[in-house]
Amino acid sequence: MISIIPVHGLPEIREGDDLAALVVELTQSNDMALQDRDVLVLAQKGISKAEGRIVHLDGIEASETAVRIAAGERDPREIEVILGEAKSIIRERGPLVITQTKHGFICASAGVDHSNAPGPGMLVLLPVDPDASARRIRDRVLELTGRTVGVVITDSFGRPFRQGTTDVAIGIAGIPAIIDLRGTKDRIGYELRASRTAIADEIAAASDLVRGKAEGVPAVIVRGLQLEGDGTAQEIVIEPEFDLFA
Amino acid sequence: MISIIPVHGLPEIREGDDLAALVVELTQSNDMALQDRDVLVLAQKGISKAEGRIVHLDGIEASETAVRIAAGERDPREIEVILGEAKSIIRERGPLVITQTKHGFICASAGVDHSNAPGPGMLVLLPVDPDASARRIRDRVLELTGRTVGVVITDSFGRPFRQGTTDVAIGIAGIPAIIDLRGTKDRIGYELRASRTAIADEIAAASDLVRGKAEGVPAVIVRGLQLEGDGTAQEIVIEPEFDLFA
Repeated sequence: MISIIPVHGLPEIREGDDLAALVVELTQSNDMALQDRDVLVLAQKGISKAEGRIVHLDGIEASETAVRIAAGERDPREIEVILGEAKSIIRERGPLVITQTKHGFICASAGVDHSNAPGPGMLVLLPVDPDASARRIRDRVLELTGRTVGVVITDSFGRPFRQGTTDVAIGIAGIPAIIDLRGTKDRIGYELRASRTAIADEIAAASDLVRGKAEGVPAVIVRGLQLEGDGTAQEIVIEPEFDLFA
Repeated sequence: MISIIPVHGLPEIREGDDLAALVVELTQSNDMALQDRDVLVLAQKGISKAEGRIVHLDGIEASETAVRIAAGERDPREIEVILGEAKSIIRERGPLVITQTKHGFICASAGVDHSNAPGPGMLVLLPVDPDASARRIRDRVLELTGRTVGVVITDSFGRPFRQGTTDVAIGIAGIPAIIDLRGTKDRIGYELRASRTAIADEIAAASDLVRGKAEGVPAVIVRGLQLEGDGTAQEIVIEPEFDLFA
């Protein structure tokens, strides 16, 4: 059996906060202290805030490209910030852009979001290196508790072909990204159907089940997995030439 | 807290088996009897087997198209079966095909699979109407136990942009497909980022966490969700003209 346990009661996260310490303190006082092999799942927004990945629109000047994409329907300075976070624009429809982030993830608006920002006129960016963020949290939990946990940093991504968003892993430490179920490829090197499970994304999706509607639970413990391995979310990024689906 | 509970001990499913009754019996004898609002998650393969959705390659004659796609690397009769299950071919690379199924789902090989088939030379097809299959299971559980549960039928799908497969919902009953978090659209009608959560897909992904490597656990209980609503997996299918990502 696997348990998905929300960690309630985290304060609003501010730049410089020791997020790992806050989670450790809360879980200990709530009688659900972290255990070896727990996976601590943290929503990206809390990590980004702790790391100071906040931009104020006041300081942004929109380029011509940003003004064009905004099309009078969106603040062009927001588009400018998105362009700064994007490696490339994959799709552009009206003022909405699907981007490849500098990490290689394909998502709307390069992960830039104004919801749940610290204040009006502020945008929250994705962490610069979410795998490194996950590792820092993992190391800090070990330091504070002696427990060896996995860490997954999640964001809600839309996807082709299917309505709605699911939470996916954008940074991981102490767990594998992918579990190879069969280890079989066909002779031209494509993966065979259902041979490799994106376990980190499945953990991310599972954690969202306890988040509730208000996005008020940035930390979730997934307990009962027996995962071996230590991957990165970068391994989940697929090279276009091997992307059968795109 | 949410619990993800594997139902161990199901026998190999055969055509005509009362899958709901088998699960009910097992859960009752294992002291984890189904409760109101539980979500019973069933892997597609068990449903398909119970419904007799098995094809023997012996009876199949490959068309020229199937022979061409198979390219000497795959049994052309298998391609023929896939073509029969597909509404259209979305991508074709070597002998691998990404298809839209008759239900509208985009997946490899129209969901046709020879792994875990009842025997050699046999293929398992997706259920004809997985939403109806889910509803039948839900009704049968109610009849047998008096409990009102949600049902999700899952399959492992690859996806663009990200490595590996995740389990997704192909049929549901008694739960919503999508939860609308903010109810906001921009003025041209596109959904705003992260506004709608594909809860049925997240439940499907969560259930896969206890399946283990051998795919030996076709039934999983997800306990602790408090979902209102009654949707269909058909609602998850996105019309191409509204598919920002594709």
